[in-house]
Amino acid sequence: MQRTDFGEMACSIARTFDILGEPWTALVLRDVFIGIRRFDELQRDLGVSRKVLAERLARLVDLGVLARRGYSSRPPRHEYTLTEKGSDLVSVLLASVAWGDRWAAGEAGPPALLRHRGCGELTHAELRCARCGDVLHADGIDVEDGPGAVIPDRIKERL
Amino acid sequence: MQRTDFGEMACSIARTFDILGEPWTALVLRDVFIGIRRFDELQRDLGVSRKVLAERLARLVDLGVLARRGYSSRPPRHEYTLTEKGSDLVSVLLASVAWGDRWAAGEAGPPALLRHRGCGELTHAELRCARCGDVLHADGIDVEDGPGAVIPDRIKERL
Repeated sequence: MQRTDFGEMACSIARTFDILGEPWTALVLRDVFIGIRRFDELQRDLGVSRKVLAERLARLVDLGVLARRGYSSRPPRHEYTLTEKGSDLVSVLLASVAWGDRWAAGEAGPPALLRHRGCGELTHAELRCARCGDVLHADGIDVEDGPGAVIPDRIKERL
Repeated sequence: MQRTDFGEMACSIARTFDILGEPWTALVLRDVFIGIRRFDELQRDLGVSRKVLAERLARLVDLGVLARRGYSSRPPRHEYTLTEKGSDLVSVLLASVAWGDRWAAGEAGPPALLRHRGCGELTHAELRCARCGDVLHADGIDVEDGPGAVIPDRIKERL
């Protein structure tokens, strides 16, 4: 359906959104994260067609984001769990929760609250600089070529 | 093209990916963030059709994520800048850079490096608990109903 192969671009945003850039996929990951792990339950919760759900799940297993394991042999039934790669991808979702809560929740307020098991408090995810620990804002970042860069000269001039 | 209205779901992930869940949109925001702000330059850099680009830009302006301003009156030409809402959305992209660099960069390594202007170091975005400051992992989070929740009972039982 999608003709451009974002996963092949030399850009970590393109590569991430090659997976997440289809809202059902983000919501499948959300559901597995909150403990909805079985096909029929996922289908019921999301209200998505079985065909689309099966495709998304198969892709996420292929990519190593989800692991599939049997929980019944007669009839054969499977459930899905997050791999380490998948759990790390849920972190991107946690950043999106912070944005959605702030900018898209409206008067009703946040649909869900996150409690950090470590400190026991209701919280939200905050982006911080891994080096100095300060809060990281987009306008405090400069972008430079990395080792995997494939950047045309016309763009390099701007960076 | 997309029949399900993710923006209307009571979920901050669905609401965020109603905007970001189309990879071109994420890449348009990336480009504006790194300083590629004019229509023709965006079109050249992304290699996307003018029609798709115009649609995405108009939607992002409508949503208040980008602001459009004229930089030439003859001929009329516009450039796009991030609003505060948009700059905050770029933070979600910064979280995705960290994931893509770790899990999708392969042997070539990260395509781009982020330098934090505050401390001057090359860095990556780290998600931390806004309350206690510890690093936040998906598996250290419990999800609870928020004020804007619309959660069916069958799901509530699991939370």
